[in-house]
Amino acid sequence: MRRRNLALVLGAAAEHSPLSRADVAGRVGLTRAAVSSLVDELIGRGALTEAAATASGRVGRPGRALTVSDHGPAGLGLEIGVTHLGACVADLRGEPRVWRRVDQANAGRPAGQVLAEAAALAAEAQAEAEALGLRVEGRVLAVPGVVPNGPAGLVERAPNLGWCGVRLADHWPDPETVPEPENEADLGALAELWNAEPAETFVHVSAEAGIGAALVIEGRLFRGARGFAGELGHIPVHPDGPECVCGARGCLEQYAGQEAVLRAAGLVQPGAGGPAQPGAGDAVALLAERAAAGHAPTLAALDRAGRALGLALTSAVQLVDPDGLVLGGAYAELADWLLPSVRAELAARVTVRPWDPEALRPSGLGRRGPLLGAALTTVRRIMADPTLLPVG
Amino acid sequence: MRRRNLALVLGAAAEHSPLSRADVAGRVGLTRAAVSSLVDELIGRGALTEAAATASGRVGRPGRALTVSDHGPAGLGLEIGVTHLGACVADLRGEPRVWRRVDQANAGRPAGQVLAEAAALAAEAQAEAEALGLRVEGRVLAVPGVVPNGPAGLVERAPNLGWCGVRLADHWPDPETVPEPENEADLGALAELWNAEPAETFVHVSAEAGIGAALVIEGRLFRGARGFAGELGHIPVHPDGPECVCGARGCLEQYAGQEAVLRAAGLVQPGAGGPAQPGAGDAVALLAERAAAGHAPTLAALDRAGRALGLALTSAVQLVDPDGLVLGGAYAELADWLLPSVRAELAARVTVRPWDPEALRPSGLGRRGPLLGAALTTVRRIMADPTLLPVG
Repeated sequence: MRRRNLALVLGAAAEHSPLSRADVAGRVGLTRAAVSSLVDELIGRGALTEAAATASGRVGRPGRALTVSDHGPAGLGLEIGVTHLGACVADLRGEPRVWRRVDQANAGRPAGQVLAEAAALAAEAQAEAEALGLRVEGRVLAVPGVVPNGPAGLVERAPNLGWCGVRLADHWPDPETVPEPENEADLGALAELWNAEPAETFVHVSAEAGIGAALVIEGRLFRGARGFAGELGHIPVHPDGPECVCGARGCLEQYAGQEAVLRAAGLVQPGAGGPAQPGAGDAVALLAERAAAGHAPTLAALDRAGRALGLALTSAVQLVDPDGLVLGGAYAELADWLLPSVRAELAARVTVRPWDPEALRPSGLGRRGPLLGAALTTVRRIMADPTLLPVG
Repeated sequence: MRRRNLALVLGAAAEHSPLSRADVAGRVGLTRAAVSSLVDELIGRGALTEAAATASGRVGRPGRALTVSDHGPAGLGLEIGVTHLGACVADLRGEPRVWRRVDQANAGRPAGQVLAEAAALAAEAQAEAEALGLRVEGRVLAVPGVVPNGPAGLVERAPNLGWCGVRLADHWPDPETVPEPENEADLGALAELWNAEPAETFVHVSAEAGIGAALVIEGRLFRGARGFAGELGHIPVHPDGPECVCGARGCLEQYAGQEAVLRAAGLVQPGAGGPAQPGAGDAVALLAERAAAGHAPTLAALDRAGRALGLALTSAVQLVDPDGLVLGGAYAELADWLLPSVRAELAARVTVRPWDPEALRPSGLGRRGPLLGAALTTVRRIMADPTLLPVG
């Protein structure tokens, strides 16, 4: 009960601050004495800050403004992408205060080596956060792969990294700081849910090198019976199509994945060994630049990707009946060129019931979504249960 | 609170009967006096029957056995299929006591005419139930089409019947007996959930002339944001395939729907106008008979249907990550010939995480599922809230 009331008071401060203790009592429907005790505890745990007295305009003691702390408790998010590493520290207000992204080709390298580098980046981000007065209370790692509901700490498979059955604890240098893995598409969807307050039931598509999706059903992330929901990238769109890295044929990734689009756009050497890399630089930015310049093969490649994506999303709409579809990750940055063909495909194929083309929209978070979601996971946990924080 | 306790007592009697009042008190953790008052009310409402005294083998008064009534309150289920009408009355124990199925071609006929015939069948079934001492307390109609979450009473579209925007109240002869429409695949899944206690999260495929599916997520039917979830029949399996009745191309129904299978098996005249009908008789029984006799074109048609179904179910597994897949409706009766190719397709395509071929199984209810689910909907509502019943 106290736990619930602590969360209630902290939530009121987050939503309506600055508030005085009296304001909080009015909002949450508890006595002023009870609220004062809760506020004292939240201050002690570092979740709330109370400013000096301010004029309230009302009779009585001037209120002292309560706000959620911008120092103290924080969440560390990490990301291992196919071509980058990322780290983010968000404070309890949900603001990202440290943000690092390092280009790095991770596909096919030993998991231990990649994880050691992620751990080094995490340590740097944590040190930077500490210099800002922040204290990391939890660590979540976004991975482009399937993370089962259990056992904890396991990445079942990440085909685009070449990982199979990787237990983070087996490789992470410091047992004290092993992060919790989570599917990057799921984290992108959560960031969207927490930031943009989209529809109650939506499918969030997240593209980096691979393609994932997440289902938010009635305001909650649905991870699937075993944690594998949302594998949009391996929906068969052309059943006899090219072989996919997963071993099946004609998966969406073979048409709308980053490598496939780059190849179709003529931006990598066909037949080159190893993962497609357009030399140095950012493949998504390169595609956007070429498309904006009217480069015909790039436009054709994005149109083809959009059609394939529209096919896979038709399956998602027919099965799940979401209120909305959100294009996140790299797709958000390529939305100008993808949206027309995705929408056309949906309009042609979702005919058995009404479908509004505007229900498909790009995420405002773009490629920042999964890393932000990873950092915010800890923040949201603390906001829901402030007793997770040590007493100051 | 009393409502909840009435449901608790009725539920205990349903699960463990025969029970004495004392047994019920012990099971539900209420005083004997409270239980007696609840039992009296349930008897008054016709939900419970109390037998004459029986020897209990224990000290004290002999218990009088309480059981859920096999007379009195009942649910009426109706079904409009593409080639049949059905009616079922189930008593409060969930037993179907009246069961009628009439072959009738309903595709393309005016909705008002079909509904008037369904109403006549409903009246006959109700009269038969009344002769058994049953009293219909609710009416649910299974339709092979999409039924939105709101407004109530509307069938948005049923392509295989040729219905678009049909409001039942506009056509039903008697305003007192208008049934509630519900998607037949959803009702089939509910019947499966209530009878077979399958996995917590499963996809139930229901085939009659068309193909529908329903998602049960964590033990609850998920109808979608607007009631349109589970439209498996209109998942594109071969995007450039033949045109479907829905207007799109290459939908699953064009490969695994009844008409497509009959045509591929050579059991209807190709190019014949109107819906495919193998003359008189039951198309599913005919397919099963030919397949069992080793008729090569039928075996090939079912193999092709199974492969297409495997493709669509791959999308369902990749997106939703169910514990199980259930083949219901006509597919259950053709399972011997469909399962191998559906399983082979799933095994080849669901590779990015573990998948057990045995997670796919036929429903024990077969084509009876939707109609049974329609009748049981009322029964389950009464069991959850016995105050829906009039006081005797």
